Amino acid sequence: MTLTDGYFNCTERERAVFEAGIKLASLYHQYMGAPVNLENMDSFEAAMKEGMRAQPYVKESWVGIDREIVRSKLSRFGYCSLSEEMLSARVVVRYRDVKVTAYMGWVEELKYPLMRVEKVEEDKQ
Amino acid sequence: MTLTDGYFNCTERERAVFEAGIKLASLYHQYMGAPVNLENMDSFEAAMKEGMRAQPYVKESWVGIDREIVRSKLSRFGYCSLSEEMLSARVVVRYRDVKVTAYMGWVEELKYPLMRVEKVEEDKQ
Amino acid sequence: MTLTDGYFNCTERERAVFEAGIKLASLYHQYMGAPVNLENMDSFEAAMKEGMRAQPYVKESWVGIDREIVRSKLSRFGYCSLSEEMLSARVVVRYRDVKVTAYMGWVEELKYPLMRVEKVEEDKQ
Amino acid sequence: MTLTDGYFNCTERERAVFEAGIKLASLYHQYMGAPVNLENMDSFEAAMKEGMRAQPYVKESWVGIDREIVRSKLSRFGYCSLSEEMLSARVVVRYRDVKVTAYMGWVEELKYPLMRVEKVEEDKQ
Repeated sequence: MTLTDGYFNCTERERAVFEAGIKLASLYHQYMGAPVNLENMDSFEAAMKEGMRAQPYVKESWVGIDREIVRSKLSRFGYCSLSEEMLSARVVVRYRDVKVTAYMGWVEELKYPLMRVEKVEEDKQ
Repeated sequence: MTLTDGYFNCTERERAVFEAGIKLASLYHQYMGAPVNLENMDSFEAAMKEGMRAQPYVKESWVGIDREIVRSKLSRFGYCSLSEEMLSARVVVRYRDVKVTAYMGWVEELKYPLMRVEKVEEDKQ
Repeated sequence: MTLTDGYFNCTERERAVFEAGIKLASLYHQYMGAPVNLENMDSFEAAMKEGMRAQPYVKESWVGIDREIVRSKLSRFGYCSLSEEMLSARVVVRYRDVKVTAYMGWVEELKYPLMRVEKVEEDKQ
Repeated sequence: MTLTDGYFNCTERERAVFEAGIKLASLYHQYMGAPVNLENMDSFEAAMKEGMRAQPYVKESWVGIDREIVRSKLSRFGYCSLSEEMLSARVVVRYRDVKVTAYMGWVEELKYPLMRVEKVEEDKQ
């Protein structure tokens, strides 16, 4: 039994994948446009990563901002806005016995920060 | 074949559910905090709804802001910030032969704007 | 007398300019990353413009998204994220007898979406 | 001479106040809705504070999230969304010889997270 049993009509695997999609999209749409420079990036990455960990079912998270892209985008004021090509993230979600690993990162051929399911594993505890 | 075939390791059903999670979380984290009042709500709901329609695989979308809650939250300046208890949304996503209906809305017993999978249907076209 | 008299230590002119800065930055940081395509732009511009109108002291507002830039940034999925080079806005704020016009738009030489004060007028009513 | 001389039509004092308004509104609209709990707050406050420091003319910044309010708002999942009553911030901006201190925080009588100018000082260096 979980808190939310009555609210869902899908399998455990589907639920786990749904939660993974939520986490990546939350990250992207929450932080696009935030001010970043070469000094505050570590702190900002840490906060984003820990924010993901605060969300339900997240077991692991990792967030990266591409230093080279930030450097190339710096305005004359020495910082830039967080944008789609510079952000990547991976999250591991566990819902009951299903573990999902999902990733977001820029795909040049699609001109798109694609969010994707890397792995769905059943792993009885 | 779709554009993104090579990037995913999951079933069509799981993919469709993943996309639905992305859409609801995008909406929530993009627009929380936006200024709303009784005059601009229609326009804002329309823009949010059409924003969802711009995203991949979305077939239908609906967004609602609760007028009563907005009214009760209005500041002395006659508007308030969009907040979690007042926003609800439904989205229908189709990935190949799978159609997923997902919903977000406040659940008082959880004190939470729960995003949930309402239906997963296989529907060969 | 206004609602906020006791909270400020500055002149009316300074107050008006402060409010103008707030409005442009609200717009920028609220909407960066939102999904836009050639179909939903009119609706989205209208919502952003009306959102500014909902905020205190705003008398006029205008928001534009550059169609050419959107076109050039469209992903393989036919939409893109709202980004700094494509957004511009103008706002007219009146605080008591002072009217301020402020503008935000991309400045290539600064690589920056500069927010600026165009005009401060005293205009007794 | 500064980078932006040609773009502004206002006094130095007005410019400094305009910049202060921008910083507070950026913070508010960027981060509303972000996931916070009792564990990630320190990290999130630090990132918000350092984000402000990355922006032009900011000399000092301070950001606080009210622990009591967070505690009272926690969902059944042990976290909540950053919301208007729990966030406060102070920023000191210097533009040339003018130093402005501005503050944002919830004002119960206005039901509003008021951004205000606390002090404008001229201070030749």
